[in-house]
Order: sequence, then C-alpha cells, then structure tokens
Amino acid sequence: MDQSRLSNIVHGLAAGSLSPDAALAMLRDFPAGAGTDFLLDTQRRLRTGLPEVIYGEGKSAGHIIELARRLLATGEQVLATRVDEAKAAEARQAVPELAYDATARILYARPKSCDPKRGMIAVVCAGTSDVPVASEAALVARCLGNPVEEIRDVGVAGLHRLLAWLDRLRAARVIIAVAGMEGALPSVIAGLVDAPLIAVPTSVGYGASFHGVAALLAMLNGCAPGVSVVNIDNGFGAACCADAINRR
Amino acid sequence: MDQSRLSNIVHGLAAGSLSPDAALAMLRDFPAGAGTDFLLDTQRRLRTGLPEVIYGEGKSAGHIIELARRLLATGEQVLATRVDEAKAAEARQAVPELAYDATARILYARPKSCDPKRGMIAVVCAGTSDVPVASEAALVARCLGNPVEEIRDVGVAGLHRLLAWLDRLRAARVIIAVAGMEGALPSVIAGLVDAPLIAVPTSVGYGASFHGVAALLAMLNGCAPGVSVVNIDNGFGAACCADAINRR
Amino acid sequence: MDQSRLSNIVHGLAAGSLSPDAALAMLRDFPAGAGTDFLLDTQRRLRTGLPEVIYGEGKSAGHIIELARRLLATGEQVLATRVDEAKAAEARQAVPELAYDATARILYARPKSCDPKRGMIAVVCAGTSDVPVASEAALVARCLGNPVEEIRDVGVAGLHRLLAWLDRLRAARVIIAVAGMEGALPSVIAGLVDAPLIAVPTSVGYGASFHGVAALLAMLNGCAPGVSVVNIDNGFGAACCADAINRR
Amino acid sequence: MDQSRLSNIVHGLAAGSLSPDAALAMLRDFPAGAGTDFLLDTQRRLRTGLPEVIYGEGKSAGHIIELARRLLATGEQVLATRVDEAKAAEARQAVPELAYDATARILYARPKSCDPKRGMIAVVCAGTSDVPVASEAALVARCLGNPVEEIRDVGVAGLHRLLAWLDRLRAARVIIAVAGMEGALPSVIAGLVDAPLIAVPTSVGYGASFHGVAALLAMLNGCAPGVSVVNIDNGFGAACCADAINRR
Amino acid sequence: MDQSRLSNIVHGLAAGSLSPDAALAMLRDFPAGAGTDFLLDTQRRLRTGLPEVIYGEGKSAGHIIELARRLLATGEQVLATRVDEAKAAEARQAVPELAYDATARILYARPKSCDPKRGMIAVVCAGTSDVPVASEAALVARCLGNPVEEIRDVGVAGLHRLLAWLDRLRAARVIIAVAGMEGALPSVIAGLVDAPLIAVPTSVGYGASFHGVAALLAMLNGCAPGVSVVNIDNGFGAACCADAINRR
Amino acid sequence: MDQSRLSNIVHGLAAGSLSPDAALAMLRDFPAGAGTDFLLDTQRRLRTGLPEVIYGEGKSAGHIIELARRLLATGEQVLATRVDEAKAAEARQAVPELAYDATARILYARPKSCDPKRGMIAVVCAGTSDVPVASEAALVARCLGNPVEEIRDVGVAGLHRLLAWLDRLRAARVIIAVAGMEGALPSVIAGLVDAPLIAVPTSVGYGASFHGVAALLAMLNGCAPGVSVVNIDNGFGAACCADAINRR
Amino acid sequence: MDQSRLSNIVHGLAAGSLSPDAALAMLRDFPAGAGTDFLLDTQRRLRTGLPEVIYGEGKSAGHIIELARRLLATGEQVLATRVDEAKAAEARQAVPELAYDATARILYARPKSCDPKRGMIAVVCAGTSDVPVASEAALVARCLGNPVEEIRDVGVAGLHRLLAWLDRLRAARVIIAVAGMEGALPSVIAGLVDAPLIAVPTSVGYGASFHGVAALLAMLNGCAPGVSVVNIDNGFGAACCADAINRR
Amino acid sequence: MDQSRLSNIVHGLAAGSLSPDAALAMLRDFPAGAGTDFLLDTQRRLRTGLPEVIYGEGKSAGHIIELARRLLATGEQVLATRVDEAKAAEARQAVPELAYDATARILYARPKSCDPKRGMIAVVCAGTSDVPVASEAALVARCLGNPVEEIRDVGVAGLHRLLAWLDRLRAARVIIAVAGMEGALPSVIAGLVDAPLIAVPTSVGYGASFHGVAALLAMLNGCAPGVSVVNIDNGFGAACCADAINRR
Repeated sequence: MDQSRLSNIVHGLAAGSLSPDAALAMLRDFPAGAGTDFLLDTQRRLRTGLPEVIYGEGKSAGHIIELARRLLATGEQVLATRVDEAKAAEARQAVPELAYDATARILYARPKSCDPKRGMIAVVCAGTSDVPVASEAALVARCLGNPVEEIRDVGVAGLHRLLAWLDRLRAARVIIAVAGMEGALPSVIAGLVDAPLIAVPTSVGYGASFHGVAALLAMLNGCAPGVSVVNIDNGFGAACCADAINRR
Repeated sequence: MDQSRLSNIVHGLAAGSLSPDAALAMLRDFPAGAGTDFLLDTQRRLRTGLPEVIYGEGKSAGHIIELARRLLATGEQVLATRVDEAKAAEARQAVPELAYDATARILYARPKSCDPKRGMIAVVCAGTSDVPVASEAALVARCLGNPVEEIRDVGVAGLHRLLAWLDRLRAARVIIAVAGMEGALPSVIAGLVDAPLIAVPTSVGYGASFHGVAALLAMLNGCAPGVSVVNIDNGFGAACCADAINRR
Repeated sequence: MDQSRLSNIVHGLAAGSLSPDAALAMLRDFPAGAGTDFLLDTQRRLRTGLPEVIYGEGKSAGHIIELARRLLATGEQVLATRVDEAKAAEARQAVPELAYDATARILYARPKSCDPKRGMIAVVCAGTSDVPVASEAALVARCLGNPVEEIRDVGVAGLHRLLAWLDRLRAARVIIAVAGMEGALPSVIAGLVDAPLIAVPTSVGYGASFHGVAALLAMLNGCAPGVSVVNIDNGFGAACCADAINRR
Repeated sequence: MDQSRLSNIVHGLAAGSLSPDAALAMLRDFPAGAGTDFLLDTQRRLRTGLPEVIYGEGKSAGHIIELARRLLATGEQVLATRVDEAKAAEARQAVPELAYDATARILYARPKSCDPKRGMIAVVCAGTSDVPVASEAALVARCLGNPVEEIRDVGVAGLHRLLAWLDRLRAARVIIAVAGMEGALPSVIAGLVDAPLIAVPTSVGYGASFHGVAALLAMLNGCAPGVSVVNIDNGFGAACCADAINRR
Repeated sequence: MDQSRLSNIVHGLAAGSLSPDAALAMLRDFPAGAGTDFLLDTQRRLRTGLPEVIYGEGKSAGHIIELARRLLATGEQVLATRVDEAKAAEARQAVPELAYDATARILYARPKSCDPKRGMIAVVCAGTSDVPVASEAALVARCLGNPVEEIRDVGVAGLHRLLAWLDRLRAARVIIAVAGMEGALPSVIAGLVDAPLIAVPTSVGYGASFHGVAALLAMLNGCAPGVSVVNIDNGFGAACCADAINRR
Repeated sequence: MDQSRLSNIVHGLAAGSLSPDAALAMLRDFPAGAGTDFLLDTQRRLRTGLPEVIYGEGKSAGHIIELARRLLATGEQVLATRVDEAKAAEARQAVPELAYDATARILYARPKSCDPKRGMIAVVCAGTSDVPVASEAALVARCLGNPVEEIRDVGVAGLHRLLAWLDRLRAARVIIAVAGMEGALPSVIAGLVDAPLIAVPTSVGYGASFHGVAALLAMLNGCAPGVSVVNIDNGFGAACCADAINRR
Repeated sequence: MDQSRLSNIVHGLAAGSLSPDAALAMLRDFPAGAGTDFLLDTQRRLRTGLPEVIYGEGKSAGHIIELARRLLATGEQVLATRVDEAKAAEARQAVPELAYDATARILYARPKSCDPKRGMIAVVCAGTSDVPVASEAALVARCLGNPVEEIRDVGVAGLHRLLAWLDRLRAARVIIAVAGMEGALPSVIAGLVDAPLIAVPTSVGYGASFHGVAALLAMLNGCAPGVSVVNIDNGFGAACCADAINRR
Repeated sequence: MDQSRLSNIVHGLAAGSLSPDAALAMLRDFPAGAGTDFLLDTQRRLRTGLPEVIYGEGKSAGHIIELARRLLATGEQVLATRVDEAKAAEARQAVPELAYDATARILYARPKSCDPKRGMIAVVCAGTSDVPVASEAALVARCLGNPVEEIRDVGVAGLHRLLAWLDRLRAARVIIAVAGMEGALPSVIAGLVDAPLIAVPTSVGYGASFHGVAALLAMLNGCAPGVSVVNIDNGFGAACCADAINRR
C-alpha cells in the first residue's frame, strides 16, 4: 500500500471509476492483513518506503504461497528471501506470477521498473563464494527500482583487480561491499571513494572466521569512516539501506 | 585539501594571484604530510569527501597539537575525537584557534558553516547516559556542514516520549539513533520512518550488556530493514556516514 | 501427587472407602518412582505446585512411553516437551490417552480444566517464526489450568499491530512475550502495562543473532523494569513461571 | 503520578478544594517532564505501576539532585540506584528529604508504607559477598510497599543452613534468590517451594565466573521450572518483578 | 606394558620359560609401536598407570581394528571410546575378543578384574540424559579394576532423591558427579561428603547451555571446595582421574 | 568442628573434665554460627573434612577479624584467602594469633602440623609469574597437614628443567601443576607420572590469553588422561582437592 | 605466471620460436582472467611467489573444472584445496591432468619438482586425527617444490615419541607443527629447535576445545618464542608461509 | 650460552688461556641457573638460537635486576620486555650497563651488532597508536643482530601511503606488519610481496575491537596466503620469528 495506490482508490471511488466492492477488496487488508498466525503489515510502504517482505527461512511453501497471494491481492510487490529451490518450485506452480533467482535464493513478483533518475548502486564482492549474498543485495535493490552494477571477485589480496574498477566505484551513489574471511574490502574501498558504503560480512570462511564474526568485527572497526554495517549474510538489509539512501 | 581548494591554487597560480612560494607552502603536505611517526593523509577529503581526523585516544597533548597545527597549515579543518579535558586545555593554550566540547569530548577548529541546501540530520538518543555519544555524532555532523536536530531521552520504555517527536523524525533526511542497554530504539524508529537510519550502540549498561555488545547485537538483528550499524560508542563514524548520505 | 490426592488416600483409608491394596498401588511410587535409570519425582507437585514433566529431547519413544505410563498410574497428568512427530505417533499408539500438538511439539494427557477464577495469561509473539515457542508456552499454561490468550506477529517494526492489542495486554494477569532477532518486544510491552512480564528469547534469526543470544541479551538489558527472562526457546519454563504467579 | 493522585486532582478541582494554580503545578510535568537532556516519564506509574527511577551510574550529583527535585515536585517518590557515597552525601545536603542506604547504594525519599495485605517477599542470598545486591532488591521492594524478609549466607555448600529457613521460604508470595559463583541457589530453592522465583546472578567470583556470566548461565539453565532471571547484579529489576507479581 | 608384564618377560627369559622369539614378539612394539600414521605409546602404562586408549571419534572401523589388534598383541587391554554402533559391529566381527557397550559407546577387551582392596567409586548423574556420559565413566573405571556404584537421576531439583543416597556417597573413596544444564550437582554433593569429587559437565541442555558451557562454568565456580573438573562429556577422563586417586 | 573435637566435648562432659559452661561456649556456634549477615558453617569439617574458610576478596578488615575470632572461639583453624597486605596488617594487630604470607596472600592461624603418614603433594609451576598462585596452593595444603614440595619455573619451553625434577614428581602422591599462558605443563607432566594431577590455570599472560582462559581451555583439553582442573588462579581449590585425595 | 614464464614468452617472441598466436593465448588471461563471476589473479605468482589457488569449499565441480582449465591454459599449476571425493572424481574425469589426494582433500596438477637446494620442511602432527590437516600442509609444500618430511602421532602425552625425532626436527629449515586439543606440541618443539615454527591448530577435540579454539589460543600464548600461528585447520596457509621462508 | 661461547670455554681450557676458576664461573649457571624462585634457561640460545628473555610484566624491579645480573654474569645479552619507566630507572641505577627504550618499553644490554650478511626486516605499522608494539618488534630484531627498517602510519584507509613504500617492502627478507582496529594491513601487503609476513594484531581500538580480538581474527582469516600471526601486542614474538627466518 503506497501513497499513490491509496490515492488511486480514493479518487477512483470519488470519480465512480472504482466500485465500492472493488475498493473494499483492495482495502480488505488495510491497515493490517490478519491470517491464522500472521498480521500482514500492509501499511509498511506508506510508513517506511519499503514493502512488507517475506522472510522465507523456516516457513513452509504453503505459508509462503498464502502470504504471496495476500500481498498480490493488495497490489503490493512480492519479495521472499532465503527460499530454497524446492519451496520455490512449489510456490511458482501455485502462483505463476512469481519468478525465482536461485543464486540470490529470492522469490519475487512485480519488481518495480528501474528508475533512471536514481543514482547507481554498486554491489561489490570480495570472492566468488560471496556471490550469493551479493546477488541477494543486487536483486533486492533492483526490485525496488534502483539501477545496479555488480563487481565480483575483487578481494584485497589482488589490489589491481579492485583498482581496475575505481571509476565505476566513484560513479556510484551508494556502495554495498560484501566480504567474508578477514572482511577488509570495505575499509579499502571507503578510503578511495566519497559515497556512503554499506558493508555486509558473509559467513564465508572456516576456523577462526566463526561463521562471519571475524568479517563483522573487522567491518565494525574499519579505520576508514563513512562505513556502516549490517548483519552477517544480510544482503537484503544492505539493499534496503541503499534504497533508503537512494530514494529521495 | 578539497576539490575547490586545489582548484583555487591552480587558478591562483595561473592568474598570478598566488605566488609560487605561497602555493608551495600550501602544497607542502600534498600528497601526504610526513612527521616523525605519522603520515598525514592530506588527500583524504579529495578522495572521500571527509577530512583527515585525529583519533585522540592514547595520543599525548603534544602529539595532538602537532597534528592540529599541520592540518591548519594546509588549510584543513581540525576534528580531534576522544580528547579528555586536560589534553584539551593544553591544546587550546597552544593553538588558540581550537574550540572544545566537553560532553562530546571533541577538539575542533574551522567547522564548516551550515549548508542550508542539505537535509536535516536527526540525532536521537534513548537515555541521558547516551548523551555523550549522541553529542559526538551531532557535533561532528555540524562541523561537516549539516543541519542537525537533537532529540534526547526517548527510550522505548516510554513510547509516548518517542511518538511525540514523530514529525521531526519524519522530516529528517538521515537519522542517527543512539542507544545502550537493549538497543531497541533503532528498530522501533525504523518501523515508523522512511529515512536511512544509522544505529549507534553505546556501552551504557552493566552485567550482560557486556559494554555495549547487547545493544550492538540487537541493532544488527533488527527486524525493521533500512538500518545499518557502526561500532560501539562510535558517534563520529555515524556522523561520517550521515554526511556521506547527505552530501550530494 | 498433589495435596488433595494425598488427602483423598488418607481419608479413603480412614473411611474404609479405599482398600489397603488400592492405596498401596497409588502410593507405590511415593516418594519417588524408581526405574532402570530414572527416579520419578512424584512429590514434585506437592512441593512446587508443578507436576514432574518429561523432557523429550534425546529420549527414545520407548522411554517416553514408560515414563508416561508411570505418571498416569500415579494419577498425575502427563506433559512431555520437545517430542518430534515420529516419537509422538509411536507413543500415542502405545498410550491412547495421549494427545499431541505438532506446533508446540508437546505430548500430553489429562490436562487440568481451565480454572475461571484465575487471571488471564497473554502469550504474545513477535513474528510467525516464533509461533512454535509461543505455542509451547500457551499449551503448557493451558494444561496447568490457566485461561490463555494468544497474540501473534506483533513485532516492533509495525507498532500499530501491537498497539491494537493494548486492551487485551492490559487485561492480562501475566504476560509472556516471545521474540527472536533483536528481542525488543518485551521492553516495549513492559513500558505499557503493569502486569509481570516473562520474556522468552527464541533462536529465530541468523548471523549475529547467534541462535538467540542477541535476543537473550536484549531482554536481560531491557530498560523497562518488571521483566524477567527464561532460557532461549524455553516456552515451557515461561509457562511454569506464569502459572506460579497466577496460581494463588 | 498514579491513578489515585490523578483522581485526587480532578476531584479536588471539582470540589473546589484544590485551586487551579495548585493543580497546574502538580500537572506541570504531566505527561512528561522535559529538562535540558531528559524527559521525565511522569506517566510511568499510571501505565506500569512503577515510578520513574533514577539510574545513578554515570550521572553527576547535580544531575541526580535536579531529577530528584522534579520527582518530588510532582508528588512522586524518589528511588535512585547505583549511587556512591560521595554523590549521596552531596545530594542529601541539597535535598534533605533524601535518605541513603550505603550497602544497597540507594538514595530514596517518600517510600511507600508497607501494605499488610500484600504477601511477603523473601530475599535470599548465597554468600555475604552477595549482600549488596540482595540489599538493593530488598530496599526497593520495601520502598514499593511490600513486606520483605531477608535470609543471608545460605549457599548450597552447606545445605542445612538453607533447609533451616524452609518454613519462611514456603511462607513467601514471591522469592528473590541472589547468588554469584556457580549460581546454584535458585535451582535448589525452586525444587522446594511453589512460589514464583526471580533469580539474580551477581558478579561475585573470579576467573571463569566471568563477572557473573557463570551464575547467569546456570540460572537460565536451571532444571527446576518456575524460575526466571534478571540481569547480573540487577537487584532493582528483581524487586520490580516481585512487586508486579505481588501488587494485585 | 606394565611393570609386572615387563618383569615376567625378563624373568621368563632368565628362567628359560620364555623363548627369545616369543620375548621378541612381545617386545616388538616396545617402546613405541609404529604404524603407517600412528605411534602406539606402549610404555604409557609403565609411566602413568593407564593403558594407551583409542579415541574412536573420526577413526574408521579399519583403523580401530588395526590398533586393537596391536594392543592385544602386546598383551595390553583394549579401551576404545566414542565408537558408534556400526563401527563397533564391524570391529567385533573382525576381533571377536572385543565387547561393546552401546550406552557408553565403548569397545573393550580384557578388562581388569575388580580389585576388592580398592575403594568404591561412586558415579552419580543428575538426569537420565546424562546417563551415556556417566556410563562411559563407570565402564572405564570398572575396566581399570575399580569397584563402581552408579546412582542416577538425582538432580538438585528434587533434593530428597539425592539425600536418599547420602550413605552410599559417604562410603565412596572417590565421587564422579555428572550433570548438564546448570551443573549444580557437584557443588551440592561436595558440601555433604569428604571424598574427592571429579565433576563432569555434559552437553545436555539447549539455548544458553551452549552445549555444556553453562555446566562447565558452574562447576569451575563451585563454592564447595574439593571439586575438580574435566572437559564437557569427558566421562573417560573422569574415570582416569578417579583411578589414579584410587590406585595406591 | 571435627570428629575428634566433638568427641572430646562429649567425653569431657561425661568424665566431668569439662564444665557445662565451657562445653556450651564451645558448642555455641554449633550447628551454624549466625552473625549479622553471615552463617558460619561450623559443621563443614565434620561433613567434608575441610574447615570453613574465609574468602577475603571484597570483605573489609573488620569483617575478616570478626569471622576469624568466631572461628578461633570454636577451636577451628583460620584460613583467609585473597587478603591484601593492608587488611592483613589490620587483622594481625587485632588478632595477634594470625600469621600472614604476602606471596600467597593468605592470613592464617592454627595450621595443622604436618602429618608424616600422608603422601607428599608436589606443587609445580611453569613460570615465576605463577608463583603467587602456586604459593596459595602450597600454603593451604601445608595448613591442612600435608607434606608439600614446591618446584618452580619449569615451563615446557625448557624441558630439561622439568625433566630434572622427574624423580620428585614421581615420588608425589598428588601433583598440583600451575601454569598460565598456553597452560601446557599439566599435559606434559601427566604423560610422565602416575599420580593424580590437579591443574590450575593462572591469569598470567596478555592478549589472547584472555586472563587465563587460554590456559584453562588447554588444561580441559589435555591429551594425557588423569588430569582434572580447577578455576583460574584457584590455588586454594587445588589444595583442597589434593588434601581430599591425600587424607585417607 | 612467474618471472621465468613471462621471460620465456618475451624471448620466444623475440627469437621467433613462439608464434604471436601462441603468445597471445598464453597472455590472454594476463593481467587478470575474467570469468562470469571470478577474476583469476594471474599475476599472483609474479607478485607473491605463490600461484593463484582454488578454494574448493562451496564451489561446484563445474566451477572448479572451469578454474582449473583456465589455470592450465595459462601454464600455471593447479592447487584446489578442500575438495571432497565426489567433486574430485567429477573433475578428474573432465580434466585428466588432475591428481587427487583424498587425505589432504587436494586436487592438483603440474606440481613443481622438488628443488634439492631448498631446505627441508618438517611437518609434525600430534595425533592421528590431525593427519588430514598435516597432509594438506605437506602436499602443498611439496607441490610448491620443497623437500618435505612428515612425522606423525608424537603428541606431548608421550614425550619419548617426540624426542626420538629430535635429529630430524633439528635438520629442518622450517617446521610446521599441527595439533588439536590442548595444542601444546608447538611450544614444546620450539623450546628444542632453532628453526622458525608455524603452528597449525586443528579442530580435533570436543567440548571445551570449541572446534579448535583451545588449540589456537594455546599456540598464540606459547611461552617459547619463534612460533607464529595460522587459522584453525589451515594446513595450506602454513605451507605457503613455510614456502615463503624457504624460497630464497 | 651460544655455540661459540661454549666452544671458547672448551678451547680456552685446552689451550690454557682460561683458568679452571674462570671457566667454572662462566659455567656456573650451566645448564640452568637456579635462583630462589626461578631457573634461568641458560641453554636456550644453544637449543633455539634465542637468548633467555625476561618477561617484565608483574616482576618487581628487584627481580628484574637479579635476573639481568645473572644473565650478564654468564656472558648473555639482556632483553627485558614490558618494563615500565619507573622500574627501568631503578634497574638502570643498579645495573649501569642497561639501556632503556621508553616507547618499546624494553630494558636491554649487550645488543648484538648488526649482521650485514642478513636480509632486512621491515617493520610496518598501520597507525601511530600501533607504534609502541612496532617499536618493540624493531628493537628486539635489532638487538638480535638484524638490519631493520621501520615504516609507520600506512593504514589501508589511505592506500597511496602504503604503495609509496612498495620498493622497501619488496626489498625485505621478512616483513612484520602491525595493526589494530580491523587489522587489514597484513592481507593487503601479503598480496603485493613475496617475503614471509608475520602479522601482529594490537589492542588499539575500542568497542567491538575487543582489545585486539577483531584484528587478531582478521589476520587469522586473511585471504592472502603466506601470513602467520602472533599474539595481540606481541611485537617481541614477531621479532623472534623474523630472526629465526633471517638467521640462516
């Protein structure tokens, strides 16, 4: 439910172009769509500029389908993160409107079209093992209407690979930097550019990486200012931050 | 050294309004000002939009004075964080241009004047014990030229206090939310506004707060998207992020 | 073995309405019912008001069946927590008196009927992923004879969903608040009501949630007083606390 | 500001026994008393049954004095926790109404008189080193109007000392059990009584006690149900929980 | 290889009752039996009184069989810990002399017969889930020739169950106390007896038990002296300690 | 209060050699000596073979003096651990019977005389920085009547220093091995001797020693069996364990 | 791409022995070989002396095959670590040049031949469970052209096993010491030899070994200087360090 | 005691140039110099190439003086680390041969003269706050006879500062890289050079740096191979590693 959709309903009713029954159906879940064990936050976009999103981890395919249908019925776009391939296949059979990106593990529908007036969001990742998290960030940012460029495998162990992309990094309005292991990439980039940078630690690594803790701590302690951090493997959250920065 | 100052030097020389000696003095520390055990990063503003900043913790007053003089000599502003009162007094006697804010523990000179074309940065804190960290964020943001509003003592245990400020929060271009203890403030605010939000955990608390770890973890796991996080007590870093967002 | 059952035995014997043999069978496991590798604490209800409960994790179906039969033989109710569906099916075939709740993962028999003189226990959870833990709390509280109301998916990222339930929360004698991720729900509720509140962190989340540690720490550091905390995912323990509060 | 005081104002105005000016003064800080960097939550008692309390750690004596005066002016009682002796002396000179308990480190005024209709709260501690935390709990509970009994130095290494107090423990409406080191006391008591039990871990110990973490974890994992836990050294919070249980 | 066996070889040779070839075969692995990737420490019993033991975790059945045969060939007893049922079955088929205890997960051969001159070792465990670790301790102690008594399910939540066994506990020369969750059992027992007590934390529990860390910390911080601790789930190590105490 | 002292009282009374008044005075604190905020566990030696000991950390000199006097009055020996020099001086002035060992930080009176029938306890430490903890262990063991030998500065970085003492180590009935940093000493010794070994980690070290955690973990994971562990810096506890082993 | 190969190309072209097309193919990936989601760092050997290596964890067989082919096409050797047997079999079918070592879990091609002018690298491990990590170190060191000797199962619990190898240890130019559990091996060796020693903690152990953390901490705190440490289970990294030391 | 000194004694005696008394005095502490609570490891240099070093932390000035005199008496050099200024002044007054470096906090005597046949050791640090640890490394390396170059304040936030030193870094035989906060410096350097690199994390930072843990973890997880790590703030250990590499 966003400003324009709400406005359309009101004006449609006023102009007679929308029947009371149709309006009622569209407003049914407004302000909050209650199900057996959920309350769809249909006002979220109105308040925060971001749609209600489905956190797919631990939800059954049936549950995801129910939520996706409710969102579609209210005219909202669908974004379901952390959905594995089996659930995705079941959901797409039930709701043909849904698309699936296996790398990003995202099920989605009605992505917003790219808004050319917005700045470019650069999504950079350190190694090929970080690509799934970077893909989650890139796809979410695109579904929210942002121009996105992806730069991959430019970890600090081979600085020339990173420096080769400096022009594109300096062209970005926001940078999302994704790295596991020692998580040094954001610090190095932040020392080279003037855009805000969202750092995403990943759980890539072993031993004393502690499933991403090493990268998380490195990013929180970066000596280059202008960097803020989201949760381990949280490409989705980074995209939301970038979208909020890029929106106005 | 920023774009315009470098440009002034070049044009000044070209136009004859700047003597080679004067230009030489201004460029002396360019690209990097070497001292006995430091290398002043005088190109930092050119690359990142942020000035070289003095991290005062563990530095002697003498060391801070030397660095401040070097920055002033190159025409740069001075920002020294985590400076206690005794060192500040000594530094101010040596360098009269310096001002000091005891709550924010910042020593500074030549703050940029407020740029009215920029959006407003709201700095919100949960409790009165969080005020020093919030002050660091607010003062740094102001010194970088941003309009800033401060909202204090609006922790989630008394929601009505927070909701009373909703209009100002919704008017902000960026929000910095500062909280210790359970660190719930950013999540609650992020569910109500559409601006990007930088969360700053503080070390306020005791026992299982583990000097700010509880708040840090809460902020990294916030269920409201659009929130990114900086290090514990890092008001300075949050201000730099907000400035980078607000700059263009 | 509770006060009234013990009293019935004694009076039954005195009045001759109970034969010595029957009394002996009922007392056989008193004070403690010894098996091959367990000692059933049949006096527990007498001492603590709570029955001996079977912790199902890591116990075989056969073991659970043996314990359930022993409890039923002494006239006690049965509550077995953390029982998966396969074991539950096997146990129900062996002991038809048993019922099973798959969401709460509880196997039970002879629940106490609802005592209308008791206050209402509100079980609130932040997200749909927290429902299993909330269900465990709600079902245990009901089996112990308490009136229970369940409120679901009212996390702090959409405050209006929570505030819509304020009347029911204020009507409760005890509140159990269940949340994972940043665990902010208990603090927000505790600032709005005057009932004692038991907070239950859940292991819902990923990355820096550390399987519920983030939520646990947040709850221990809540700035709203009147909140106490139980172990991660311990819906059962919260229900026992609430029952102890509600009992008198 | 509690129900009866608000009602008195309204009826006093209606009956003419209260002048508009006097009423205005009493209501001046209603709903929230704003100072330079604080917002006094004067509605707290109305909503939660507990007064706004001053967290003394890190606040100057001057700050505590200002807050105490504001609370007294609104007719509220004063409770300031974690106040050291020097600040307390300064505050008492400025505000003669204040009393100070050096063991509990609490500064207070206008304690509620003991309500004989309430149940008894037993505050038990394991060792003499735990006495300060236990005293904080006991004094706060008394200031809120509860009958309190204190039992000291009954750690589990000498069970007979604990068992000697079993009658008093069984007479309590709520039990607060305070222990450091291995934190076993709450588990042992909870297996013997039917009252709700609030466990308070203390930072007493050394080495692998990790400033109270060992006791905290033990209490969260207690095998006797009916126990909930508050933060390390949080006697104040335990008293608030006990008061909420005991209030109705 | 123990003192008496070595002596037998030497005297046998001297007396002509042992042929040089037979002696050679028996001494082949002395001082250390080298295999492809192992060095059997055949002198261990000579030095430490304890035999070389096979740590079964992560070893293949084939590897265990090879080691068992080598030990048997040198006349040593066999003790292989942490062996699952599948490997045990394969090993027993290959080496019929081996016996297996599925609860203790131990594969063994040639246990020493019980030495009646030794004191009794009491192995006590808190809950039925701790039985596997207690069984490992008990079986290892028995295989080393010690009289052992097992006491099960006497956790501190039902003190009367523990107190019922006080006579047997006081009759023990050494006590091994096994507990998970809050790990309070050793402290309580150590306050009641004068025998040395070895505490074994187990990984039984969930959430904030952190796989046995809560119990480990509790045991390290016990307020009753005379308790020492071994690794989580290390029933084997506790039995070795008890044997060393009991040996002389 | 030990068996023989209790027996002396009874027989003295029976034989008339003890007046009822004198007996009364001796039994005054039996079974437990209550003070303002302590309960002296005067039965402890009867139950556990160890006297009630004063934990000096955080207790005032006055408090220690009061407890020491009470213990002396009941005929018990005095052992107060973790007492700094200032408190010790004050206590010795008040109670001339007390002696003080500044290295071990122990205040004591009426040590038991050495029992020659007992085995020898070897107290070994890795470095000179570990000497205070080793001294605490050695002095406590001596005060309890055990023959003690001390071996110092034999860390594993110079194996020949350790091996030079092998004869004395093999002569010991119990070994206490004290080490900080990597804590390898107990493992190495345990592979060379057959006596039970109590390992004491110390907080000696810096950085990733985490105040003794590195040594503690190393000792818990030692590959040589027969080792058990006490808390970091807990020389006192190790001595109690050794005494319990050595007592019978 | 190393110095000599680059030189061969240049001279080959100059001498006409290399056709421009062949040279082009060899240089195609120089300076960096871009694929769909990777940038092969073909300059790595030129800069660091070490080839680009494939981190096999989490990569599909197809991905590994693609990378291996690209490396072979540029004339580089292939080293892929952490490759399980199934992926290895698939890769070897696709790229027959590849060999596989199942213990070391390494897939490799074109190992450098042993350089007899280099010193010997001794790879020592404490237990048989540490063999896989030791094998990874040994095989990588051999593939890089170093003479290697392996010493296995010489943990500190049986010092004589280690001391038997002292001559070989003293003959080494570099020592790699691999150990899990308490990780004491490197400290003991470093006190006996004068070669640089790289310590590798392994995840072998259970309970309080915390998947190798105990060994890691022990190695970081070793009291014998001359020891440096790599990540848990990182045999590969240790070999690279040893190669860098041994190279010149 | 090194090879040549021992040889001199033997040959001196043989040639009559050394009197038996003089030889005796020189050998007095051989093999180990025993004091009241220490055993000087006078053979250490013979075995490991490194002298016995005094760890000054927690030792009194008197203790340091005694050890220094003993080392000087045996002809050994003196290196005492972590000595504060007060102790150093006292020691220098007692032993005039001693010199002191206040930044490195090292007290030393008889440094070896620089061996020009050795390679150069580059000691690089990220920030000015890391200088003390870097100085400890540099001074120890120099005292052991190595040519050393120091490069300061070249953290990754200003890459150009680091790249300016690339030639010197590539000229080094060994590199010691010292960094706190996010600890990224070693990874970036290791990707640019082919020398072995010893990484030293420092405790510089605050909040989530956890006194150097963030830097330590980053360094252990570096994606550039050829890096090994020593304890936090352990400049001394890094110098010993570099010396061992550089020695032959």
